[in-house]
Amino acid sequence: MVAESHYTYRVEPQDVDFTLRATIPALGAAVLNTAGADAHGKGFGVDALNAANHSWVLSRIAFEFDSRPGQYVDYDVATWISDYGRVLSTRNFVLTDARGHEFGRAVSQWAMIDLATRSAIDLSGVGREHADAVVDIPVPAERPRKIREVHPGKVVEHPVVYSDIDFNCHVNTMRYIEMMLDLLPIEWLTSEESVRLDVHFLRECRYGQTLSVGCEQQERGALFEVCAEPGIAAVRAAVVWK
Amino acid sequence: MVAESHYTYRVEPQDVDFTLRATIPALGAAVLNTAGADAHGKGFGVDALNAANHSWVLSRIAFEFDSRPGQYVDYDVATWISDYGRVLSTRNFVLTDARGHEFGRAVSQWAMIDLATRSAIDLSGVGREHADAVVDIPVPAERPRKIREVHPGKVVEHPVVYSDIDFNCHVNTMRYIEMMLDLLPIEWLTSEESVRLDVHFLRECRYGQTLSVGCEQQERGALFEVCAEPGIAAVRAAVVWK
Repeated sequence: MVAESHYTYRVEPQDVDFTLRATIPALGAAVLNTAGADAHGKGFGVDALNAANHSWVLSRIAFEFDSRPGQYVDYDVATWISDYGRVLSTRNFVLTDARGHEFGRAVSQWAMIDLATRSAIDLSGVGREHADAVVDIPVPAERPRKIREVHPGKVVEHPVVYSDIDFNCHVNTMRYIEMMLDLLPIEWLTSEESVRLDVHFLRECRYGQTLSVGCEQQERGALFEVCAEPGIAAVRAAVVWK
Repeated sequence: MVAESHYTYRVEPQDVDFTLRATIPALGAAVLNTAGADAHGKGFGVDALNAANHSWVLSRIAFEFDSRPGQYVDYDVATWISDYGRVLSTRNFVLTDARGHEFGRAVSQWAMIDLATRSAIDLSGVGREHADAVVDIPVPAERPRKIREVHPGKVVEHPVVYSDIDFNCHVNTMRYIEMMLDLLPIEWLTSEESVRLDVHFLRECRYGQTLSVGCEQQERGALFEVCAEPGIAAVRAAVVWK
């Protein structure tokens, strides 16, 4: 049985807001970079899968940050895969400061797709093949929650430009999160309260499309819906501060 | 006499476009992070200056990239200060791949400002104090060029949002560069030709302002002007592919 893997990061000046603490997107980026680096290092990264015309696609992710570390603070991201379902594999993350204090965690669910058909591949075989990569530690937070209906009170348009897209010409995950959170009051985004963010990726958005980004603000959080075509959700998200 | 300092980077998946080569903004970010890390490490970073209510402000920068390194490629950024003028200090950069081949360079000019008055401080004293940080190697490229008049054929509006701003609540340098380059044809941005980008920072833009980003497209490049108020340039830039 393998153990979780550890990756270290430092909060750089470009990661902080005017509170001099790491932003939610900066911490989210560290989590996603950890997923990429760990899969790459273990030989089942996007680059290795592409050789078989397969790729990982992030389906859902939930982040919880109890606090946001300050500038120049070192922190650790532990990651492990806890299970392979038929369609989704679950990768977990725990964020810990230099004194060993856990301040954040994330649970992500990934599908493997065939790049030719863009349909999901049954992971049962992959699960058997990579059984030795599964770590028997429970998920560190509630799995990503379902987000059903969103009734936006505010909608902005966002043309997808070059700096939004990834190696696949799709809008990159962190840009979706930024464009949604940017609709919230800055007092919330810079708050020192603990926060949970759930994101569902339903459809891929591409260079040249114009997205509508809708926000339904609630008492201590908000629901979001991003559409490239009217009424067809591409991304949904929920954020809540405690 | 001190030598130049070296910092190593790797082209990560989030740094590349669909050509699987590092984007111009990703290479530009590495250059700027190098400036911040080197100043911080030598004790005259923004954090140290803030204690005296001073700060470094980037006035002009020119980047030249002969080629863009591929995903997972390691590269080195050498940096040194070549001179202190009365108002501007010059920090230089050379980018080299793992085989020692130089593929890029940058020349940046920084002013020190008093945060209370936001006016420039005479650097003569700073130059004497930090004379041992000056390295006697000539600038590796032509200094940032003057950009006078821009006659935009295309203008887009950009409200300044939370994800655009830095620790100072000003729009961060790389976001300006992204919002300007995003107005160009994607074929140019993903081209393998060598490129030079000159940027002048004239006024600071803040959270809550709405910027107009204008582009005057030319045969092999473009001029840009970003304004927060009509007719008053906050940033000007010029890009040209060879």
